[in-house]
Amino acid sequence: MTTPLNERRIANAIRVLAMDAVQKANSGHPGAPMGMADIADVVWREFLNHNPTNPQWANRDRFVLSNGHGSMLQYALLHLTGYDLSIEDLKAFRQLHSKTPGHPELGYAPGIETTTGPLGQGIANAVGFALAEKTLAAQFNKEDIKVVDHYTYCFLGDGCLMEGVSHEACSLAGTLGLGKLIAYYDDNGISIDGEVEGWFSDDTEQRFLAYGWQVLKVDGHDADAIRTATVEAQAEKAKPTLIICKTVIGLGSPNKQGKEDCHGAPLGNDEIVLTREALGWKEEPFVIPEDIYTSWDAKAKGTASEAAWNETFAAYQAKYPTEAAELKRRLEGDLPADFAAKADAYIAEVNAKAETIATRKASQNAIQAFAPLLPEILGGSADLAGSNLTLWKGAKGVESDAAGNYVHYGVREFGMTAIANGVALHGGFIPYVATFLMFMEYARNAVRMSALMKQRVIHVYTHDSIGLGEDGPTHQPVEQIASLRGTPNLNTWRPCDTVEASISWKSALERKEGPTALIFSRQNLAFQTRTAEQIVDVAKGGYVLAQEKGELKAIIIATGSEVALAMEAYAQLEGVRVVSMPCAEEFVKQDAAYREAVLPSNIRARVAVEAAHVDYWWKFVGLDGKVIGMTTYGESAPAKDLFQFFGITTEAVVKAVKELTA
Amino acid sequence: MTTPLNERRIANAIRVLAMDAVQKANSGHPGAPMGMADIADVVWREFLNHNPTNPQWANRDRFVLSNGHGSMLQYALLHLTGYDLSIEDLKAFRQLHSKTPGHPELGYAPGIETTTGPLGQGIANAVGFALAEKTLAAQFNKEDIKVVDHYTYCFLGDGCLMEGVSHEACSLAGTLGLGKLIAYYDDNGISIDGEVEGWFSDDTEQRFLAYGWQVLKVDGHDADAIRTATVEAQAEKAKPTLIICKTVIGLGSPNKQGKEDCHGAPLGNDEIVLTREALGWKEEPFVIPEDIYTSWDAKAKGTASEAAWNETFAAYQAKYPTEAAELKRRLEGDLPADFAAKADAYIAEVNAKAETIATRKASQNAIQAFAPLLPEILGGSADLAGSNLTLWKGAKGVESDAAGNYVHYGVREFGMTAIANGVALHGGFIPYVATFLMFMEYARNAVRMSALMKQRVIHVYTHDSIGLGEDGPTHQPVEQIASLRGTPNLNTWRPCDTVEASISWKSALERKEGPTALIFSRQNLAFQTRTAEQIVDVAKGGYVLAQEKGELKAIIIATGSEVALAMEAYAQLEGVRVVSMPCAEEFVKQDAAYREAVLPSNIRARVAVEAAHVDYWWKFVGLDGKVIGMTTYGESAPAKDLFQFFGITTEAVVKAVKELTA
Repeated sequence: MTTPLNERRIANAIRVLAMDAVQKANSGHPGAPMGMADIADVVWREFLNHNPTNPQWANRDRFVLSNGHGSMLQYALLHLTGYDLSIEDLKAFRQLHSKTPGHPELGYAPGIETTTGPLGQGIANAVGFALAEKTLAAQFNKEDIKVVDHYTYCFLGDGCLMEGVSHEACSLAGTLGLGKLIAYYDDNGISIDGEVEGWFSDDTEQRFLAYGWQVLKVDGHDADAIRTATVEAQAEKAKPTLIICKTVIGLGSPNKQGKEDCHGAPLGNDEIVLTREALGWKEEPFVIPEDIYTSWDAKAKGTASEAAWNETFAAYQAKYPTEAAELKRRLEGDLPADFAAKADAYIAEVNAKAETIATRKASQNAIQAFAPLLPEILGGSADLAGSNLTLWKGAKGVESDAAGNYVHYGVREFGMTAIANGVALHGGFIPYVATFLMFMEYARNAVRMSALMKQRVIHVYTHDSIGLGEDGPTHQPVEQIASLRGTPNLNTWRPCDTVEASISWKSALERKEGPTALIFSRQNLAFQTRTAEQIVDVAKGGYVLAQEKGELKAIIIATGSEVALAMEAYAQLEGVRVVSMPCAEEFVKQDAAYREAVLPSNIRARVAVEAAHVDYWWKFVGLDGKVIGMTTYGESAPAKDLFQFFGITTEAVVKAVKELTA
Repeated sequence: MTTPLNERRIANAIRVLAMDAVQKANSGHPGAPMGMADIADVVWREFLNHNPTNPQWANRDRFVLSNGHGSMLQYALLHLTGYDLSIEDLKAFRQLHSKTPGHPELGYAPGIETTTGPLGQGIANAVGFALAEKTLAAQFNKEDIKVVDHYTYCFLGDGCLMEGVSHEACSLAGTLGLGKLIAYYDDNGISIDGEVEGWFSDDTEQRFLAYGWQVLKVDGHDADAIRTATVEAQAEKAKPTLIICKTVIGLGSPNKQGKEDCHGAPLGNDEIVLTREALGWKEEPFVIPEDIYTSWDAKAKGTASEAAWNETFAAYQAKYPTEAAELKRRLEGDLPADFAAKADAYIAEVNAKAETIATRKASQNAIQAFAPLLPEILGGSADLAGSNLTLWKGAKGVESDAAGNYVHYGVREFGMTAIANGVALHGGFIPYVATFLMFMEYARNAVRMSALMKQRVIHVYTHDSIGLGEDGPTHQPVEQIASLRGTPNLNTWRPCDTVEASISWKSALERKEGPTALIFSRQNLAFQTRTAEQIVDVAKGGYVLAQEKGELKAIIIATGSEVALAMEAYAQLEGVRVVSMPCAEEFVKQDAAYREAVLPSNIRARVAVEAAHVDYWWKFVGLDGKVIGMTTYGESAPAKDLFQFFGITTEAVVKAVKELTA
């Protein structure tokens, strides 16, 4: 440390705001903000290119606080540099309806780029930001004019580095050479359980060298060293940089600094008094002297930066009007104006073809049809391109072509999904990612984060049931679909044929307000005949696929591969209708009249059939209905043997209907 | 390669069995078995200390095939060395009810130590085996007699190394110095998508050195080099060893070796003919010459090894009878004979105390009561000991005391859970692991694997709902409990007070046939008064906590923190009963008469209340009932504000009952 603590007034503003806000909320994490204040001082005042008066400026540097529990660090920075986040907002830290929730949440305070808190995902999001920047730059920048050109800065802690997702994301970042990603590791030797040496003894420098990163080591309280390292990081264009910053957690608290006590609990009023003394800080809580505000204020500098970029963009627009318009469209997240019409034409074509193929193949056909219309597509799979069928003729890997549109993510489901969240958050792209439905579980919390953040990420999951056959129970989903359907803001589609599959893709692409999980079969599924009206109704998530013959006595509800069973049962029964429900979440959003028309409430003889856990379906069939599906794990065998063995058959559906209507 | 391929007849037996079985099944992965055959030859014939005639021998070396898709490698080895796995079993590869499912499944073929296939978890299980061995050895071995003394061998591939869980588990293995863990990395440069260099360019040697492992590099087709490296690995007592074996995937297949084509699909009949030629292998499919069988046969050697160990154990038993009896009991997985009675006495005590505390605190009290009775307990938490309340007075960290009973897992939920699965599989221990309920999602597939493998792993999840308060939506579970309840073979408990919490612990400890998730609150929960009969009924998973006053008109079903709301509503209503349902999985296993007595089927005015996703409860309340719970994400605020904001209140319960009974 080069400067005495009580002379670091600028950084100390963060320290006092953090400790006071946590104390007022009587909950929170003062340790990380106090320990990283000196790093933040250098990065935010000297390097971060941002405009507090326009948090949405497209070419801003992105900042990610991967150790999101240190949220007061970010709130203090946003407040001090001039974002629309008042001192009153800081006083409302962790209170209902405040802009300052316990962890940084996208959409609450301006300047929050991503929701963090679940450890390790922030750095993976940051990899996504850097990947998006690099790809977008390669797609749009010209020799003479660079309109996409910014850094991604990320702060992270021991927890992020222990989490496996950091391995996946950082390994790939090294392979992809994301040179504009600069991460600062808060190496304070403390986690919640205490001094980390008993459970975390990695040589992190060596680990990141193994990933192909540039690694620099500094005293995290030495501004000169942080500055020099950051300059060096910016200079390295071919590798991401990790700056390992040796810090003291809670620096400034005489009795708690360097100890786990200050990690996740208020310092306490007595210790706060002592800390004020140690920092030489005279002001009352939430009072920041004017000269300190002036030192932090980034509004003028940010406005000038943005103005300069606006000039650059104007020049680009003048010289490359098509590209400029396209870039604007993509950054706004709008699809091409003619997309919907072209997609509908494709769906009509698919309907006319009437193919019986696997829905994963129907999905690939849809990608092949839609991706050429959508240069914003950035696809990928976790080493299952040939199984998920996510490649299309125009796919180019970003590892070999920086302007590409496809990422070979490797066997990294969690990293892939969290990276895709970062790509979507960056803007300019619609990412799709893919794996077997079972291995959604490896990525599960990142799927949830895409839904919590309302990001348009398309999660493609193939091999959706015992229908995958021989790979056996470790690969056969049972309870996974219900888990996805329970995830707020996520739409989950399980189409039954080529038409539903293409409509599910269209719906996912058009859904600006959140992610979609598309669930596809390994095996061939029979094509179903539909009227034009039925085709329109598919997008409602549930519709009558086969109208009852005679008076309605019973309803069969089915999805995906089981719709064909339902239709076979239908052929053998009277007074029974078949409801195909590819997306229950969309169905329940329809108005009551539509839902009643599809599922009349007086008809209680209801049978749901789905090769997945039965429990989800009681919601639709009630205490008087039956569900045909799974309650155990699968087995390894050819698919047809498994459907027989587990009793998911036409005969079982017929029997169930007969029992209910007897 | 030192020996020409056509002279490696012993290893080639694996190659032909693998390619022929995959061809016959018309599905499977020949590449890994053919590439790792030479490594397997050395490890299994020269080093692995096992007894094919007794796969359960306690002191056997453990072998884990982390790249489980190469299952035919393991089946070939088990068959050739003399396990009860016939050539007919190999012919039935991937068929229904065979002993040879697509991935190695525990309980199907003898000698399979763990179910693998979900990549990266096998190596994490292996870390668990090695941890269990080291801890059990420290607890039981004497200066003069070592009764626990074996190695853990693990084969793994590129996929395992890309997965984040390998980072978590291998980092901790390095920190804990698990010197008897020896891993062989099949470094063939190929994954499903092709040559890995575009997406996996880690310097794996450097990465594992960073974890504190010994790393050796060999030609994976050079028997001498593999032998020398294995000897070196055994000699290193303080560090786990990674042997990086450069191999050619599918070695022997003239046109497909070294290419992704042979990874996950049959070679095809023509290529098999060419491969036979290249290998100089004359026999028909599934015919192994007698001399090759003789070379592989490990029955005599294994029987002798076990006999020698039996003598050692007899000497131990003679000198240390108490310890010997205790070791036997623990390896058999039996609880002490007096455990049930002592546990019941403790529960009676808890009932008498009638404390209103958080169930996570009640859980800690239960651990404090039960752990001193159970030296087989090996606890731990993913860096949340002070929040999960998983430490007890007798807890000793294994990082400082090899004979300890607690693991500081660090921030590694997935690694922790997969390691615990390995510990349970090893035998001698009942592991419990802990994190916040939300971060179960990071470990989700390992939780599933514990259930699929029917292992007694106790998953402790605290901070179970919006009741955790200020940390906000990233930390507040909504759909997680339903996901656990949908997991076959998993019991999920969400107790409402101290009595239910202690009974849930007893149930989990006594449940030999599978894992249990114990879900606890952060906040205090009101103690509920019960009769002796009601206390007995808690273990049935659901029971009448409050009998209706007057004629039964409606039922309120609640769990955990919402039982108190239900009881407050009950106080304001007539003809209403309260059913507490801490473990729905146990409840549905009860006989129909009991279930009908608790939830009479004619009573359709049913209200379920749980601060979790509503969808789970339609199963119990049907189309005519109501569910009070969550359908959105939470918010950051004090818990009491959140319950009000989300309408999970006594008033809401009363209103719902009145609406249904109006």
